[in-house]
Amino acid sequence: MARYGILTSGGDCPGLNAVIRGTVLQGTTVHGQEFVGFRDGYRGLVYGDIRPLNRLAVRGISRNGGTILGTSRFGPYSEPDGGPENIKKVLERLEIDGVIAIGGDGTMAAANRLYEDGIPMVGVPKTIDNDLEATDFTFGFSTAVEIATDAADRLRTTGDSHQRCMVLEVMGRHAGWIAIYAGVASGAHVTLIPEAPETLDQICRWVTEAAERGRGPLVMVAEGFTLPEMDDAYSDKGLDEFDRPRLGGIGEILAPLIQERTGIQTRATTLGYIQRGGVPTAFDRVLGTRFGQAISDVLADGDWGQMVALRGTQIERVPFTDAVGHTKSVPLDFYRGARALFG
Amino acid sequence: MARYGILTSGGDCPGLNAVIRGTVLQGTTVHGQEFVGFRDGYRGLVYGDIRPLNRLAVRGISRNGGTILGTSRFGPYSEPDGGPENIKKVLERLEIDGVIAIGGDGTMAAANRLYEDGIPMVGVPKTIDNDLEATDFTFGFSTAVEIATDAADRLRTTGDSHQRCMVLEVMGRHAGWIAIYAGVASGAHVTLIPEAPETLDQICRWVTEAAERGRGPLVMVAEGFTLPEMDDAYSDKGLDEFDRPRLGGIGEILAPLIQERTGIQTRATTLGYIQRGGVPTAFDRVLGTRFGQAISDVLADGDWGQMVALRGTQIERVPFTDAVGHTKSVPLDFYRGARALFG
Amino acid sequence: MARYGILTSGGDCPGLNAVIRGTVLQGTTVHGQEFVGFRDGYRGLVYGDIRPLNRLAVRGISRNGGTILGTSRFGPYSEPDGGPENIKKVLERLEIDGVIAIGGDGTMAAANRLYEDGIPMVGVPKTIDNDLEATDFTFGFSTAVEIATDAADRLRTTGDSHQRCMVLEVMGRHAGWIAIYAGVASGAHVTLIPEAPETLDQICRWVTEAAERGRGPLVMVAEGFTLPEMDDAYSDKGLDEFDRPRLGGIGEILAPLIQERTGIQTRATTLGYIQRGGVPTAFDRVLGTRFGQAISDVLADGDWGQMVALRGTQIERVPFTDAVGHTKSVPLDFYRGARALFG
Amino acid sequence: MARYGILTSGGDCPGLNAVIRGTVLQGTTVHGQEFVGFRDGYRGLVYGDIRPLNRLAVRGISRNGGTILGTSRFGPYSEPDGGPENIKKVLERLEIDGVIAIGGDGTMAAANRLYEDGIPMVGVPKTIDNDLEATDFTFGFSTAVEIATDAADRLRTTGDSHQRCMVLEVMGRHAGWIAIYAGVASGAHVTLIPEAPETLDQICRWVTEAAERGRGPLVMVAEGFTLPEMDDAYSDKGLDEFDRPRLGGIGEILAPLIQERTGIQTRATTLGYIQRGGVPTAFDRVLGTRFGQAISDVLADGDWGQMVALRGTQIERVPFTDAVGHTKSVPLDFYRGARALFG
Repeated sequence: MARYGILTSGGDCPGLNAVIRGTVLQGTTVHGQEFVGFRDGYRGLVYGDIRPLNRLAVRGISRNGGTILGTSRFGPYSEPDGGPENIKKVLERLEIDGVIAIGGDGTMAAANRLYEDGIPMVGVPKTIDNDLEATDFTFGFSTAVEIATDAADRLRTTGDSHQRCMVLEVMGRHAGWIAIYAGVASGAHVTLIPEAPETLDQICRWVTEAAERGRGPLVMVAEGFTLPEMDDAYSDKGLDEFDRPRLGGIGEILAPLIQERTGIQTRATTLGYIQRGGVPTAFDRVLGTRFGQAISDVLADGDWGQMVALRGTQIERVPFTDAVGHTKSVPLDFYRGARALFG
Repeated sequence: MARYGILTSGGDCPGLNAVIRGTVLQGTTVHGQEFVGFRDGYRGLVYGDIRPLNRLAVRGISRNGGTILGTSRFGPYSEPDGGPENIKKVLERLEIDGVIAIGGDGTMAAANRLYEDGIPMVGVPKTIDNDLEATDFTFGFSTAVEIATDAADRLRTTGDSHQRCMVLEVMGRHAGWIAIYAGVASGAHVTLIPEAPETLDQICRWVTEAAERGRGPLVMVAEGFTLPEMDDAYSDKGLDEFDRPRLGGIGEILAPLIQERTGIQTRATTLGYIQRGGVPTAFDRVLGTRFGQAISDVLADGDWGQMVALRGTQIERVPFTDAVGHTKSVPLDFYRGARALFG
Repeated sequence: MARYGILTSGGDCPGLNAVIRGTVLQGTTVHGQEFVGFRDGYRGLVYGDIRPLNRLAVRGISRNGGTILGTSRFGPYSEPDGGPENIKKVLERLEIDGVIAIGGDGTMAAANRLYEDGIPMVGVPKTIDNDLEATDFTFGFSTAVEIATDAADRLRTTGDSHQRCMVLEVMGRHAGWIAIYAGVASGAHVTLIPEAPETLDQICRWVTEAAERGRGPLVMVAEGFTLPEMDDAYSDKGLDEFDRPRLGGIGEILAPLIQERTGIQTRATTLGYIQRGGVPTAFDRVLGTRFGQAISDVLADGDWGQMVALRGTQIERVPFTDAVGHTKSVPLDFYRGARALFG
Repeated sequence: MARYGILTSGGDCPGLNAVIRGTVLQGTTVHGQEFVGFRDGYRGLVYGDIRPLNRLAVRGISRNGGTILGTSRFGPYSEPDGGPENIKKVLERLEIDGVIAIGGDGTMAAANRLYEDGIPMVGVPKTIDNDLEATDFTFGFSTAVEIATDAADRLRTTGDSHQRCMVLEVMGRHAGWIAIYAGVASGAHVTLIPEAPETLDQICRWVTEAAERGRGPLVMVAEGFTLPEMDDAYSDKGLDEFDRPRLGGIGEILAPLIQERTGIQTRATTLGYIQRGGVPTAFDRVLGTRFGQAISDVLADGDWGQMVALRGTQIERVPFTDAVGHTKSVPLDFYRGARALFG
């Protein structure tokens, strides 16, 4: 009976446990496969730290956030005990015929390198930011958007009652998917994403327009957004590079600037880790489960070097090489559509 | 300035207000369009019962369930005051240049007939059952799935504590999309949909297997599922056709049959109207908003007889004729995938 | 080291696991007590079916619905293997120094009888209906009210959109606490509880008044409410006692009666088991935890025959005899207050 | 017909709209009272800025967060146009017979001073922190606790997956009620409140113990908690008083200190304004409604200078003077109970 190892690597994400459960149930029921879990991502692979993964171990887990296998940012090439030769020995010793890596861009890049170095690897893409070109959606994104939208709904009632501007900073370092979805869903008066520069003047114009219509303006901002005038604005205040990091994220930088220019009391909230955890949405559980089932099929076919992906409503296979390093930005026309709703 | 009327028709659905708001904001901001709302679906169109729909009227509505315009199952051809000639006069009198019909299959069929009879009509598809071939997803479906999944999560804890079988009946008359999504998401031990016949024997086998593993079995069933042996089973009990409707939906029919055959205490819950109402998910608000914005663009292009649809991540246009009467069933391979998780 | 057994008996309820965890953590940390769990209520006590209950076993369980010990409606006196003499032998054999019974009125009555027959028993009251005179609130009630209110919020949007009357049946066989709380919270136009008779005429007057103000009327009804005219209304239809049970709960009985009299389309929803399960509210977790910690203190004092109860914000002790058989009805002035909001 | 004005003052809070609705419905239905709303707290009273408040104006508002009247921190004595003589003239001119002030300690103190200066004032207490001695609970607190607990549940899954310590800062400047409730509910390994000093050593011991049992430690901290060693710890780093405020709240101060001492990766999240807004829990809506109805009864009795309060399950009346300036701290034995669960 073929035996495979599963690892989850990088930041945790709602839906990881659904992937693990989907893989194990499909594998044991349909293909007669057997599974073990590597603990804490690539660390478990490098040191052969495994735990059993049978039907019982995965029962009921898909509605839990996090990952039952643990995760880490450990890289398989970065330690003396790592590297393909050592890992091959680990797999032989543990009688493991192949490895499923569940993770983000870095995890997939490492999986691809291991695959090219002769390790039988397959992958399941994971990014809460939804910024992977190869797939229409990643699991975890739906949950993050619902949490961010719920937070925005809450902030609006306070903003409206106090006639205050509320700034909500959400995740999205390189791509603004969470911000743009949550911004449209919550009717934000401004949504700022890394892909689309907007000046402080323009932002303040939107804020003022919303306030003039009697609302507490809501500004949704992705953590990766930067303000062109940021440098000038701060040098005016006599703050230098050294002070910048202490000022916190973009939400906390924006709030006083908006308040100063518009005269409207402005408060920032940073959602942070709350977006990553907890009960996944049904959508994320379904996508995770389907990814898990599909990767078990990939194993059954011995289709090494492949990753699963969602295209429309179908799960497809994509080579690692097509997937690694291709960030999916928010397209300009999507942003323009959202922008028509601002102010 | 061009002036358009909007109507919502058929059963209500989370996301309708997002469509209305998206249309009005895009139309007024981008295309300089003006809008009125017809009250209570086609009834408002036939009797010229309108209300103003400006920016103020749609502010903050996308997070509310239902429809601010009211809805009904009134057909535009079914009353003496209806029909294209009367409706043309109404539109002329009210100086309305075109009509957006938001509704399901019946609404779109009527819209198409009106369009063929010379009324400038466009459409936005709506079905909480997600069973429209022309679009990957419809708004409202995501909310319904989350509600059904949450209910299933709750029932499982009771089922497990009492070692009882819990049957949950969800919407889906012709297609089992809500059931299959909520079933996979909640880890149901059996999911039954109209598209896939299963015998009572097979159902009871899954239930028994789950119980033997120490769980309270969870059976998710779409309202449109029917049991091949249902007739026999009931004729054995001396019940005839007359009694059948009084026995309630399929959930209430199944529960005693499962209990009798397996000896496991079984309880049915029918989710009903709770699935249709309340705060929409962010996903449904975004989809509704995008549909609304896109239909305003369709109006601007004078592209009559078209409906908007989601394909992958893109909003596209589809002629009414391509959309009407094409039910999107759950594909057999999707069902087979879910079925591998049963028991 | 003193060793105690815990059992959960009767219908499950959000907060049971918090009680178990609170007891075990307090007992092991503060009093040096040891615990085992009896499986499936009194059945586990009678047959000595136990499982270990240490710190590890209760970790993270307070946010899960149901009970990790299982539950049943088994009575300790009802089987040949039951009765105080047999149970004493079981406790001796298993070296158990006392028993914590967590359950409703029937469970407490049995616990009291066992206590009077010489078994060292203490109790934690549980009733999702909140109808126990001895305590201001019971755990599970808060969760049930939030679920019922959320369902009512959802139904209202549908009722308003369709100008339909929506009837929501919630739990409450002898007392209408869930109905009255959820009714006030959701702004129901009528709330019907077992304690307060209202005629169909009066109900329909409220429904009609609400409809005339343009709302979809919402009727909240506790399962134990009965209609004085029910018999007459049904005998007019030629239905007899035999037919009654097939007609379903009071919600399904009321809906057609309201529709017939008012001419307003009316739909019933029965919330059922969904109210009992799933993630408990923070309030229920806190109350459950405090009850658990307090009962461990009762054990430490050897204060047998006592039950814990909430009075204001304090946890107090009450003898079984004060608690058993005293139903806490909704006071008339509380109902009158709610009634002033009807229509 | 007697006519009264309502104002909401200070920070907004879930349940304010329920109070307004409860007052208006009870007053118009039971006592034949009439109402207007003052806009933005005492500002509206001082400048006679009112809006009508009839049955229609309050329909459906109890499930909305914030306040439909707007709020501010404006004091009635602090501006030249304020003071009792001016306010008396405003009330005469607008034919208003008395004022309901809904607000916190400051609002009640001002209401009392106005009452002593001859203005007919009554009050409804509001503090999301639940720290008012005169009442068992205040509305808004329940919602805040549920939001904080949900956030903690989410953080735990991330903490467990990454073996990280997660610090969650919640509201509570002078009293730790939100922290202690949410901490007990979420099973926090440490809960820190202003009332109970704990050393960094002790905190790190609990964190380490939790980590040794394989958990991601969760630290719940009220914003008002301060660390005895904070000064020393920071002076070691060469930071002075000037730097302190820039370091953010106590959560952000604690996280690096814990990480440094324990060697466990630690991350802080500050929940902030999210706790104040959005859909109120059913409990808060019921309490708000009951407070509103009761204050209308107080008006009917002409019982000036009184405030409503919850004692056990009853609504009672309390003179302003008994209520103002009496903070309700978390009692030591409540904290000790929670502390037994730490680590």
